[in-house]
Amino acid sequence: MASLAFEKALTETAAGVERTLDHLLPRPQGPEARVIEAMRYGALNGGKRFRAFLAHQGAKLFAMDDERSLRLAAAIECVHAYSLVHDDLPCMDDDDMRRGKPSVHRAFDEATAVLAGDALLTLAFEILADPATHEDARVRADLVLGLSRAAGALGMVGGQMIDMASAGEDLAIGPLTRMHQLKTGALIAFSCEGGAILGHASPSARQALHAYAHDLGLAYQIADDLLDEAGDSAALGKTAGKDKSQGKATFLTILGEERARAQASLLADQAVAHLEMFDDRADILREAASFVINRRA
Amino acid sequence: MASLAFEKALTETAAGVERTLDHLLPRPQGPEARVIEAMRYGALNGGKRFRAFLAHQGAKLFAMDDERSLRLAAAIECVHAYSLVHDDLPCMDDDDMRRGKPSVHRAFDEATAVLAGDALLTLAFEILADPATHEDARVRADLVLGLSRAAGALGMVGGQMIDMASAGEDLAIGPLTRMHQLKTGALIAFSCEGGAILGHASPSARQALHAYAHDLGLAYQIADDLLDEAGDSAALGKTAGKDKSQGKATFLTILGEERARAQASLLADQAVAHLEMFDDRADILREAASFVINRRA
Repeated sequence: MASLAFEKALTETAAGVERTLDHLLPRPQGPEARVIEAMRYGALNGGKRFRAFLAHQGAKLFAMDDERSLRLAAAIECVHAYSLVHDDLPCMDDDDMRRGKPSVHRAFDEATAVLAGDALLTLAFEILADPATHEDARVRADLVLGLSRAAGALGMVGGQMIDMASAGEDLAIGPLTRMHQLKTGALIAFSCEGGAILGHASPSARQALHAYAHDLGLAYQIADDLLDEAGDSAALGKTAGKDKSQGKATFLTILGEERARAQASLLADQAVAHLEMFDDRADILREAASFVINRRA
Repeated sequence: MASLAFEKALTETAAGVERTLDHLLPRPQGPEARVIEAMRYGALNGGKRFRAFLAHQGAKLFAMDDERSLRLAAAIECVHAYSLVHDDLPCMDDDDMRRGKPSVHRAFDEATAVLAGDALLTLAFEILADPATHEDARVRADLVLGLSRAAGALGMVGGQMIDMASAGEDLAIGPLTRMHQLKTGALIAFSCEGGAILGHASPSARQALHAYAHDLGLAYQIADDLLDEAGDSAALGKTAGKDKSQGKATFLTILGEERARAQASLLADQAVAHLEMFDDRADILREAASFVINRRA
């Protein structure tokens, strides 16, 4: 069971980042309104906002104010939303549903979905480079650099490419792990590290948060595979059991349920160990590790 | 006829930016090699590199060294290349050929083309945010901000959305002009202005270059419409007469050939007038204006 403080922090960040996104996304008007509506539809969807939570909590460790850390969180959620919009396309994972609603290319059309994804990715960098995110331009440039590396060909895009290219192939545990580290791990790691960059953290603190989020991201993915197997589509808001039906290798198919659970638990412990240098202000991040492996959706 | 100095500058910048892109693009390796090959295929294609030329010449006015200004030029060409890769997709303009070769989704596949475009867009921001582009972080953050605005929903993406949404519709001259200002004008304007940002130009010099490129970009588009009507597909490297066959409004269909030519010429003169504050170092940019309206491909 998650503590009340943890639940409250999670809910408050989700509400805060939703508000911030609503404020930062352009308003639909003019003949280009359609793509802006699609951006808003794809980004303002009441997701769990787990990456936003990590960025916000990471920044809190260095006493950053909410306004700035929610801008960072919003930029990260724009990149996450863009990746879902593009991954759902018919030529990619061909998913008609996302969080219980038609995916963007179903609610609009394919061209609009491609463009809305492009614009969300672009907006993320615009948010970070804006002086409102931090008065120190070096912080802004460092955030852009970190996010672009997490998102690019050696990050999320590379991971999705491997995932697509290995459909029907039996990936071994090593390549499967690397695929997930690129596809989802890189952005999760940047989320925490971004909070540290925003907070002018020391290199060692920044490195510790990166290592924490790295292990956490992998635990998150294993838990995802377990949920996908056990889960019902309604709770997940997407088609459950899809990886299995597509014959994709998952941590579950490779390790079996018992070893997969043990591995997720080990990674969560490992993640927490990286937080040793922080005092009780990191308790929420410690709790996030057990939340990740025990979540139901 | 373009002067030898102009031809030389154009050729040298094109070669320099091709070299810089080759250096900055990742090398194909690992299981994600396919998307990197597609990025390189889409970006290293020996295009005219007109945007790179503007950025390079803009930066030269402020005595920036080639290495930095070619990094800026490469980032801009990454964004241009990404937009072509995505615009050519079947769900967008459905173009099978680009510069005389199969477009990326034909040479690879649709999913890889979506991902390669995503990665090229992301790489542009990574290049600009890297300390190698400028030691002053404020310059780097300003470049990211300017490029993201030119590329986003109120720039290139918005323009492409309007272009898609108005297929089969008779746009009036006002909306058509705005569509092109967003779709191609915003990046052309940023190209020149980016050189000024890189060179720590005064606000008035920066504004002058922005205004120059704004008018130049529109002249470029009108010339494009004239070429599309007159041109043969071989010289253009793409399907000529496509706009006409799709019943799209162009400057040519609205204004007629004579008035379209007069308008392009007027805009080119207007562009040159904005360069008054610069001495003869801006002569190449002055010549670019007549090059744009007299080009054959």
